[in-house]
Amino acid sequence: MNNFSLNTPTKILFGKGQIANLGKEIPADARILITYGGGSIKKNGVLDQVLKALEGRPVFEFAGIEPNPSYETLMKAVEVVKAQKIDYLLAVGGGSVADGTKFIGAAARYTAGDPWDILLNRGAQVTSAVPMGCVLTLPATGSESNNGAVISRLATGDKLAFFSPYSYPTFAVLDPTVTYSLPARQVANGVVDAFVHTVEQYLTYPVQAKVQDRFSEGLLLTLIEEGPRALAEPENYDVRANVMWSATLALNGLIGAGVPQDWATHMLGHELTAMHGLDHAQTLAIVLPSLLAYKKEQKRAKLLQYAERVWHLRDGTEDQRIDGAINATRAFFEQMGVPTRLSGHGLDGSAIPAMIAKLKEHGCVALGEHGDITLEDSQRILEAAR
Amino acid sequence: MNNFSLNTPTKILFGKGQIANLGKEIPADARILITYGGGSIKKNGVLDQVLKALEGRPVFEFAGIEPNPSYETLMKAVEVVKAQKIDYLLAVGGGSVADGTKFIGAAARYTAGDPWDILLNRGAQVTSAVPMGCVLTLPATGSESNNGAVISRLATGDKLAFFSPYSYPTFAVLDPTVTYSLPARQVANGVVDAFVHTVEQYLTYPVQAKVQDRFSEGLLLTLIEEGPRALAEPENYDVRANVMWSATLALNGLIGAGVPQDWATHMLGHELTAMHGLDHAQTLAIVLPSLLAYKKEQKRAKLLQYAERVWHLRDGTEDQRIDGAINATRAFFEQMGVPTRLSGHGLDGSAIPAMIAKLKEHGCVALGEHGDITLEDSQRILEAAR
Repeated sequence: MNNFSLNTPTKILFGKGQIANLGKEIPADARILITYGGGSIKKNGVLDQVLKALEGRPVFEFAGIEPNPSYETLMKAVEVVKAQKIDYLLAVGGGSVADGTKFIGAAARYTAGDPWDILLNRGAQVTSAVPMGCVLTLPATGSESNNGAVISRLATGDKLAFFSPYSYPTFAVLDPTVTYSLPARQVANGVVDAFVHTVEQYLTYPVQAKVQDRFSEGLLLTLIEEGPRALAEPENYDVRANVMWSATLALNGLIGAGVPQDWATHMLGHELTAMHGLDHAQTLAIVLPSLLAYKKEQKRAKLLQYAERVWHLRDGTEDQRIDGAINATRAFFEQMGVPTRLSGHGLDGSAIPAMIAKLKEHGCVALGEHGDITLEDSQRILEAAR
Repeated sequence: MNNFSLNTPTKILFGKGQIANLGKEIPADARILITYGGGSIKKNGVLDQVLKALEGRPVFEFAGIEPNPSYETLMKAVEVVKAQKIDYLLAVGGGSVADGTKFIGAAARYTAGDPWDILLNRGAQVTSAVPMGCVLTLPATGSESNNGAVISRLATGDKLAFFSPYSYPTFAVLDPTVTYSLPARQVANGVVDAFVHTVEQYLTYPVQAKVQDRFSEGLLLTLIEEGPRALAEPENYDVRANVMWSATLALNGLIGAGVPQDWATHMLGHELTAMHGLDHAQTLAIVLPSLLAYKKEQKRAKLLQYAERVWHLRDGTEDQRIDGAINATRAFFEQMGVPTRLSGHGLDGSAIPAMIAKLKEHGCVALGEHGDITLEDSQRILEAAR
């Protein structure tokens, strides 16, 4: 097992009706800015629940944070924070709103220069942030209880991440019932996203980290069982609860503590989103099966473990079991309604050279748990995903 | 899944050499009291490592916290905290030292009356505590990253618990190499303790909490594999690391969030320790197999799951699989060198009526996940454990 430092300070309030309890998690005298996206929280009653929980307190609203939240939009929220002397941010939404709100909080307190530098420096110069909480409406990214955010800049087509110890939400409310009204596409994306987050921290090489391996396998097995049920039975509380809790635990730091991590699928996926506007999870479903096949030798031991413990493949040669596990992964994504090839989105791969150029520009020239995925490898992985 | 609130604020520094990094986790101007037990940390060099990490800072020491830490001893430390104006406590030791230090921190700031009331009220009136960190030397209780403590009062033979949101360690250092020199008995006790902590939160009744179940099973499988190896290969780093991390995760709140919990084995075990001076884990190994057999009907569904997923028992009737799992549990404890009957410690059970009287005195008249274990049931469970 590798050495690690693990910090999971976000308090989780999980279950039906928990939004009503969020008031006491926010300092009594705080001026609160509620941040959200496109207005679905108005339709499904979540915003009303939040406002009721904060009744009588100074509350402001900032709407319009996009999927793949943009620097341009978020800087407008920073102006609101400054103008209204906001001292607590409450993100109500999915990973995009949580990510965007982390950037708002850090940028509003950033005095070292242009706030875009926060992204260029991956958060290294962040020394303070407006504290935030989160009411999660879409289980997927894990952003509600970690300290990372991915922000896009429309003007340049860049999509970059930052991390800061000041950016953990102080609390997150996870009420599975608020996910009942999600469109199937978002539910499916969330399941795929959580699945790939887990795989990025699990399918590398063995370091005898038995607990982390089994926790990862537990999340994968749960997502495989509950993902299709979440689509088929949208109001099955326990199914939604299991998906929601899996997604949070897939990226709160726990399963990745003390083990190698890959994340090449995410880096390639980010370029696919930036280039073609695909949903984040859609890009992961395209890249992952292709990457696993391409890195079969380097990942052999863990792929065999994955085949046995997650897909129960115990017969046949090693290569047959590995191929079986990769095919099963692909079939699972397809079962969730998420295509696993560029062609599934009507794309022919002609933009691959341009994406490789962007990867180069972003310094992504040595990806994966061994840092051995070159630009040439990335090109082959994307080409095999056509 | 049941609703829950989960707070895991303790930062974990895990791995070889991490003691050297603890200085920056303690406020720079803090007057620090190092608390410890019988002096083994002087022999194995841990105290030297801690002192080196705190070089040049105002450091005081309080030694002599016992296994089953006593109110009488801890109140002497409270006097030191007050006299030396201590503002940070650093527990260096196992669960007893961590537990005792939590009490010291709470009692030093307690102004509502006699500090013993903290135990009588289970922490309800604690409103502040001296902040603390922990350098763990004995993986077992999970106390290094939770907010509970069990304290004994020598004068009365009482052993009571308290919990407070002010009592989480701010950080915990887990260096597996410091456990190399532990006596086999303590290693075995730690494995049994972590195992039973997990079972108390797992072997109840199903609530469709798939992640929690699989995480618990992951810890149990790891302890079953690594426990005997920890005895056979005391300096196998990965084995010690897996045991240490399992023990922490068995009782940091994670696996118990959203599921029913039992804890009857612990309540009966506490009386066994108070009456006979048995090690905490020794009492659990005696009570658990007897309790599982006694509550077989109420726990049937989870016992069958336990038999299949943890002990791989898939053949035979339901009762055969359940009995097989209980027997395997007993055999595992015995393999670790921990007897599973009172007779293994030369006890004949003649003190059972006196222990039942103590259980009554402590209000333990309706134990278990259903609150249906009466004093009569407890008596039968103890009698069957002779």
